[in-house]
Amino acid sequence: MNGAHAVARTLLDSGVEVCFANPGTSELHFVAALDDEPALRAVPCLFEGVATSAADGYGRMTGRPAATLLHLGPGLGNGLANLHNARRAATPLVNLVGDHATFHKKYDAPLESDVDALARTVSGWVRRCDDPATVGGDVAEAVAAATGAPGQVATLILPADVSWSDGARPAPPVAPRPPATVPEETVAAVAAALRSGEPAAILLGGPATREPALRAAGRIAAATGARLLCETFPARLERGAGLPAVERLGYLAEGAMAQLDGVRHLVLAGAPAPVSFFAHPGLPGLLAPDGSQVHTLATSADDVPVALGLLADTVARDTPPPLQAPGRPAPPTGALTAETAAAAVGALLPEGAIVVDEANTSGLWLPGATAGAPRHDWLTLTGGAIGQGLPLAAGAALACPDRPVLCLEADGSAMYTLSALWTHAREGLDITTVIFANGSYAILTMESQRLGTPADGPARRDLLDLTRPGLDFVALAHGMGVPASRAATAEDFTAQLSKALTEPGPHLIEAVVPALF
Amino acid sequence: MNGAHAVARTLLDSGVEVCFANPGTSELHFVAALDDEPALRAVPCLFEGVATSAADGYGRMTGRPAATLLHLGPGLGNGLANLHNARRAATPLVNLVGDHATFHKKYDAPLESDVDALARTVSGWVRRCDDPATVGGDVAEAVAAATGAPGQVATLILPADVSWSDGARPAPPVAPRPPATVPEETVAAVAAALRSGEPAAILLGGPATREPALRAAGRIAAATGARLLCETFPARLERGAGLPAVERLGYLAEGAMAQLDGVRHLVLAGAPAPVSFFAHPGLPGLLAPDGSQVHTLATSADDVPVALGLLADTVARDTPPPLQAPGRPAPPTGALTAETAAAAVGALLPEGAIVVDEANTSGLWLPGATAGAPRHDWLTLTGGAIGQGLPLAAGAALACPDRPVLCLEADGSAMYTLSALWTHAREGLDITTVIFANGSYAILTMESQRLGTPADGPARRDLLDLTRPGLDFVALAHGMGVPASRAATAEDFTAQLSKALTEPGPHLIEAVVPALF
Repeated sequence: MNGAHAVARTLLDSGVEVCFANPGTSELHFVAALDDEPALRAVPCLFEGVATSAADGYGRMTGRPAATLLHLGPGLGNGLANLHNARRAATPLVNLVGDHATFHKKYDAPLESDVDALARTVSGWVRRCDDPATVGGDVAEAVAAATGAPGQVATLILPADVSWSDGARPAPPVAPRPPATVPEETVAAVAAALRSGEPAAILLGGPATREPALRAAGRIAAATGARLLCETFPARLERGAGLPAVERLGYLAEGAMAQLDGVRHLVLAGAPAPVSFFAHPGLPGLLAPDGSQVHTLATSADDVPVALGLLADTVARDTPPPLQAPGRPAPPTGALTAETAAAAVGALLPEGAIVVDEANTSGLWLPGATAGAPRHDWLTLTGGAIGQGLPLAAGAALACPDRPVLCLEADGSAMYTLSALWTHAREGLDITTVIFANGSYAILTMESQRLGTPADGPARRDLLDLTRPGLDFVALAHGMGVPASRAATAEDFTAQLSKALTEPGPHLIEAVVPALF
Repeated sequence: MNGAHAVARTLLDSGVEVCFANPGTSELHFVAALDDEPALRAVPCLFEGVATSAADGYGRMTGRPAATLLHLGPGLGNGLANLHNARRAATPLVNLVGDHATFHKKYDAPLESDVDALARTVSGWVRRCDDPATVGGDVAEAVAAATGAPGQVATLILPADVSWSDGARPAPPVAPRPPATVPEETVAAVAAALRSGEPAAILLGGPATREPALRAAGRIAAATGARLLCETFPARLERGAGLPAVERLGYLAEGAMAQLDGVRHLVLAGAPAPVSFFAHPGLPGLLAPDGSQVHTLATSADDVPVALGLLADTVARDTPPPLQAPGRPAPPTGALTAETAAAAVGALLPEGAIVVDEANTSGLWLPGATAGAPRHDWLTLTGGAIGQGLPLAAGAALACPDRPVLCLEADGSAMYTLSALWTHAREGLDITTVIFANGSYAILTMESQRLGTPADGPARRDLLDLTRPGLDFVALAHGMGVPASRAATAEDFTAQLSKALTEPGPHLIEAVVPALF
């Protein structure tokens, strides 16, 4: 058996069922091996950044890694930004990168580059396999490394001759590292802080934004009066009617500081200590209030749901969690704006939807408008590297073929990985994409104002504007086989969104909205 | 003066006049500084891979660096593949990467990553500036590092607080490293080899693919009988009627070995020793024939044209260079194929055109069909990282506004950096883009056959096919404001190409051709 066959077989034996691929010459033996392993579904992507974000979306929704298939350093480079987002999401992901044959690297051929150095910047685990005899075991360890708590990108570099040479064999699965148990004393110390009577807040992150942990946290907050927050950009937040509602920490330091104002005890449950997204002259980087005490109940590598459950049993034995009441906004009328578009989303969001949110400034009203919608998952831009949304939706849809996916995408960000629409069409995925077309990088206009830089200089107008010429997302979607329409009023948008959510398969709606900034 | 202003002013003082930008929050002070330096032209790009390749195209055509403006590690990641191509082209390029404020990096905010490690993989020179007092000098040194022989990517990492803090001042230009002089003894030794009567070949690369060196090399070859070749993927090859013709070394090892068969002396002039692009089971990596002697006349860091001139004066004092005779194919008729499309290009290529060639397999007949066209420049995919062509054309057009640019692009490669079309429209660039729409990654089909992997397995069909659904490049171009048409016959294509080359501004033609493999 050659190395490529052992890789494919070991992936399957270890539970990896999907490979998001953009192969090149060095990966062709692996492509050939896939012919013999039809259970390992190969999903073509027209750009590596699509493959890596799709694998991220798949991993967030299943808890199991998908594989990528990338071509040498440049292919990995193209995939890096969305691997960065996956790293911040702690998504299990097996990142397969083909490389030149072991004996060819010394020649510095045109595609040669330092693949290992690139891989280390986004991966918690990196290995270069140089022997077909070990490649099966390397793959099994990669899957275990990716899957171990809290989840990470595991990169395996596969030289072409390791793939094409015989002498390989599949390896059995390797048990991943389980989440660590939180000591009872830690739970007791946090319980004491919460019972002190001093103002407290609980910040949820990582595995604590899913139902079991949310229920425990809701009980704790209700019983102790602690404020309940979650990290600004959760990888996967379960929310909606019937679940405890949790407020996300603000993106701007000013907002987050207001949310934490007066807090004396900040309890971290799966989230790191909150820091501002960017530095800002005159604002602190660490957001916990001066003089507050930060308590780490559990890191994302710990068993956060169990720790929260123990804490709830300690401080909230008889308190049920307050649950979000059902409720939807009325279907909006009149002008289409970020606010009325959000109302339409809230009015129509289907039960069990997966919402991919890269709406950026146009998303301001979305959390409020959807809070009482039927329960759903909310996937956010964890690492701040724009261009995540469209392919993340593809991965989520492949992971959950029975659930509708709603991808809420800013126009500027959409252009980074637009070819994901082709994968939506190629795989017939049930994804409704809304492009919030405000014709600008509005978040940068907002940040410019906030930084006090000149309000309307020519360079800023040139560099933050997307209207000269405008982008026609209906034409762009048609060019990749996705049915599309444009909405210019709230009524149009509501009707088009309703139709798109009802029909199976991919759709795109260009929602023409004014920029907020 | 703040750091950002000192950066902009120093760039201008050092001769940098264009900045291809995709800024984020950390770069907004630099954007504001551009308002005060209108001579530094800011060109918006919708993706960092567009910015980096555009800067590559600009540098290849002017010999002077353009600047990029990228946003932290993910922005640099998105630009890496085309920086890899620029590195292989030895293009002078000043790569400006914004980063978090110096005091903010320790917080590991969501966008934090190892920018320095990424930069080192593609840059000959990397510096992180941490003090506004030194930033002017850092920029001047970056420009000198980029420009010094043979040219390279120089990356300067600019933390946000260095940009926004006062205490900076512009620095005067720093003299770049000139090309090294080749010792007379080296020239004499090569002359002796060429006069030995044994079969010889001269391989040109780097600065030796431009007119002065070509003329000298043509004389040498004519006088000594040496075969004249240039590297497979030259950064900028001057060619056409009235210039010495030079054959490019083949992409496949088999072809290159046939070209070099029997050679006893291989003279390198600005090119590295030739190696196969990929390893292949049973084929050698080093392409110089067994038993041949490799003579390095000059590396790309040396003054190659002068060395070739000295060599020509030694071995070919009275020999003029043989020059390519003018000649064009007849305008083609009938079916549109890669071959007839090449004939149309040869029939119509305007005087002084800049040809950007990322046609891949569909480009097989282009060199022959255009050999006798009026003189022109030919820019190729130097590093093998696909997605170079459309933005490279943008940079070349900005560098040479009076010259027509013809961008010959494969469909699969086009999808990597398609948003470059928006920059074509945004800047009103005189670029005619031809998309060779063969509906597949045909080069991988060819390589699969060559590697002996199964000819028609389902995974290969799935992963190398671009027709389910097909890509409509006319719609995609319209979506970004570029006039476009589709050609399905040779007559259609010839008429559309003639019209597009005559009208100013950007155009796109989707040339529907069968895949060769």
